[in-house]
Amino acid sequence: MTTPLTIGALRRAYLSSEATPTSVMAKLASRFSDPDQRAVWISTISPEFLAERCASLEADPAAKDLPLYGIPFSVKDNINVAGFQTTAACPGFAYSPETSATIVAKAEAAGAICIGKTNLDQFATGLVGVRSPYGIPTNPFNADYIPGGSSSGAGVSVSTGMVAFAIGTDTGGSGRVPASYNGIYGLKPAPGEWSRAGLVYACRSFDTATVFAARMEDALKVHDTVKGSDPEDAFSAEIVTTNIAAPRVAMAGPEHIETFGDADVAALYAEAHDLISKTMDVAEADLVPFQSINDLMFFGAFLAERDVSVGAFIDANPEACHPVVATMIQASRKFTAADAYRALYQTAEVRKATEPFWDAHDVLVTPTVGVLVSLAMCEEDPLGPNFRNGTYTNFASPLGLSALAVPFGKTPSNVRWGLTLYTLPERLPAAVEIAKRIAALI
Amino acid sequence: MTTPLTIGALRRAYLSSEATPTSVMAKLASRFSDPDQRAVWISTISPEFLAERCASLEADPAAKDLPLYGIPFSVKDNINVAGFQTTAACPGFAYSPETSATIVAKAEAAGAICIGKTNLDQFATGLVGVRSPYGIPTNPFNADYIPGGSSSGAGVSVSTGMVAFAIGTDTGGSGRVPASYNGIYGLKPAPGEWSRAGLVYACRSFDTATVFAARMEDALKVHDTVKGSDPEDAFSAEIVTTNIAAPRVAMAGPEHIETFGDADVAALYAEAHDLISKTMDVAEADLVPFQSINDLMFFGAFLAERDVSVGAFIDANPEACHPVVATMIQASRKFTAADAYRALYQTAEVRKATEPFWDAHDVLVTPTVGVLVSLAMCEEDPLGPNFRNGTYTNFASPLGLSALAVPFGKTPSNVRWGLTLYTLPERLPAAVEIAKRIAALI
Repeated sequence: MTTPLTIGALRRAYLSSEATPTSVMAKLASRFSDPDQRAVWISTISPEFLAERCASLEADPAAKDLPLYGIPFSVKDNINVAGFQTTAACPGFAYSPETSATIVAKAEAAGAICIGKTNLDQFATGLVGVRSPYGIPTNPFNADYIPGGSSSGAGVSVSTGMVAFAIGTDTGGSGRVPASYNGIYGLKPAPGEWSRAGLVYACRSFDTATVFAARMEDALKVHDTVKGSDPEDAFSAEIVTTNIAAPRVAMAGPEHIETFGDADVAALYAEAHDLISKTMDVAEADLVPFQSINDLMFFGAFLAERDVSVGAFIDANPEACHPVVATMIQASRKFTAADAYRALYQTAEVRKATEPFWDAHDVLVTPTVGVLVSLAMCEEDPLGPNFRNGTYTNFASPLGLSALAVPFGKTPSNVRWGLTLYTLPERLPAAVEIAKRIAALI
Repeated sequence: MTTPLTIGALRRAYLSSEATPTSVMAKLASRFSDPDQRAVWISTISPEFLAERCASLEADPAAKDLPLYGIPFSVKDNINVAGFQTTAACPGFAYSPETSATIVAKAEAAGAICIGKTNLDQFATGLVGVRSPYGIPTNPFNADYIPGGSSSGAGVSVSTGMVAFAIGTDTGGSGRVPASYNGIYGLKPAPGEWSRAGLVYACRSFDTATVFAARMEDALKVHDTVKGSDPEDAFSAEIVTTNIAAPRVAMAGPEHIETFGDADVAALYAEAHDLISKTMDVAEADLVPFQSINDLMFFGAFLAERDVSVGAFIDANPEACHPVVATMIQASRKFTAADAYRALYQTAEVRKATEPFWDAHDVLVTPTVGVLVSLAMCEEDPLGPNFRNGTYTNFASPLGLSALAVPFGKTPSNVRWGLTLYTLPERLPAAVEIAKRIAALI
């Protein structure tokens, strides 16, 4: 394990001239071939391009004022970065974008340096991180366990100290599950809050890009830098947040938390519930209404959105695709337009049914994952553990929620595990406040 | 022709005791069998129920303060009213609801009296008013022309002076087209602004109930009475409007208005454009982006929403259904879930593409219909004239707009024709202000 990179530490080093982007990047670039980086990167920045980028930043005296001056970051390989191929973890799908995704361009304009593109479950279809021809990134805390997915490389690029932040994506949990397995923060903005221009869509009607970081304030700084409506993303919108003086917290009692027989997770959640309840007023939350739409994600009509995005490619290049991913997406063709509208109605009904919850509460705290999935479990059953990883994540974006995945603890075998804080888009500061209080407890 | 009923005149008569609900309703009930009411009503209130309702209002001294005390109204027969069957213009579909639709209950709680259920294009699928086994309501201005649909009976119930307001519905134009053909006002709220609990859905993701009235202030009074979020309608929401001191108006130049060879409409629109331009600053509007989604309504995946609502009934009772309607709805089954998501994306793209329009303008003024459709035209071609009636209406609700159809003029053969004012939901007062200015011009 390496010390995590943080924006604050790098900034101080740059301002005091202890370090320069060139010196920091040289150290990082020398680590790309280290064993802990195996399968993390699908492509990395060329030495020439890196040198040029550092030189250009260092040549501009005003650049040091940029909020992300010289901050190294990674980008999940289903997001365009000019100068890199985009593969979506499917070599046959690769293309070379002429321009960067809007959010990447914003981060770069703020001084950040993209050092490489990270591995993922192919087409962002998975919550495990094992569905990629580029291999499985190693969970740095216990190599028998998955890194979490689909933003597998993104999570590990942060937890191994290669970047101060990683840009990922999230449709059913991909920006949260790897945060849990990597002991880091994952911020999933509300659908529409960040532009997705330049992304390979999974479910275009609600998926998002996300940020992973070792420090919450770093994730929030990136959020403030890249958020905002974009004419190039039809679903994007401005979201105005409000501060809430005394956020009202709700959690399900430990007896209502499904952990699929995982005693470690049950113990961690009980500890979290106990600690949080002792220091804050915690109302009882009923998760059942939220979770009632989970099955639409990988068993229902939502899958057809993935078909719109990559189905034609899969049909034309079946041998190029991961069989589990291809089969799942092609299976969506049994759904009719009527099924899609039924899914839309069901989602709207759950949104309406949970309005009273949000009238009474500001932040819903849940496990990020209910069971810790090992590589062996995925090998034995490629589907089940994947679905189980989404138990506490699938519902969020279809319901329009913002989410903040936070680290909480670890098992006796050192596997990391965390909580996720859900809130309405305009109440994100409430989740941030509760996350700070939780961080102070552990 | 009869003098239109207005809320104000009735209210004055009640307050001065010139009239009572009993005396007003007796006169109206005596007219149900008049020739001008032929095919307008699918069911009418029983004399006993009417007497009871009047007596109950008259017995309560406080009732006279109710905003709609003793105001007669009609309800389109795809909306539940306790005590009446709901047929949706399909006798085999008829059922007897136990409770009234939320909006009907609100109107009744405000003192209004529903005197009957009105005819419609079956399952609200049509913009003509000729697709009903209950016959074709007579256009009171020229019997050779359609009454407009699908809220055909609603429009005629107002224009023949039987009610002060009529509750209709609108998916692709059904709350606006009959306003044009009947020389009255039609207010189509934004999708979600009124509850649809107790309605037979057409396209549940965006259809609305509406109000027709001879006076705009009457339509607005009903709007204020019945609007609002409802736990029973998942898509309903509170919409907060803002006043706009100087609404910015846009219209397409007459040379860009498609009138399908109808010289009367071309002349009326040119006159409207000229009159309005002379008294207000009018910017040039490009209607093409708005209209680009029109074909989704009756040729695209949106049709599958109608299938969700009534498809199973049509399959089980093919002989009970109007062949044009049944064929159109069943044809939607060729659309896949992917097609439905593509339609969702296309709609979102047009919404985004028209954001700059709404940054620059508050009210878009268009014809309500681009061609005046005769009964003979519908007989010759059951589909074409129907689609053409939607040229200036189909796009509005998928794009989330509010609409106010206003009367403007008539042809040499006395056929009525009007304009529609579109605006964003929160800017409805701007459309109302422009409608007042237009009314002052004619």
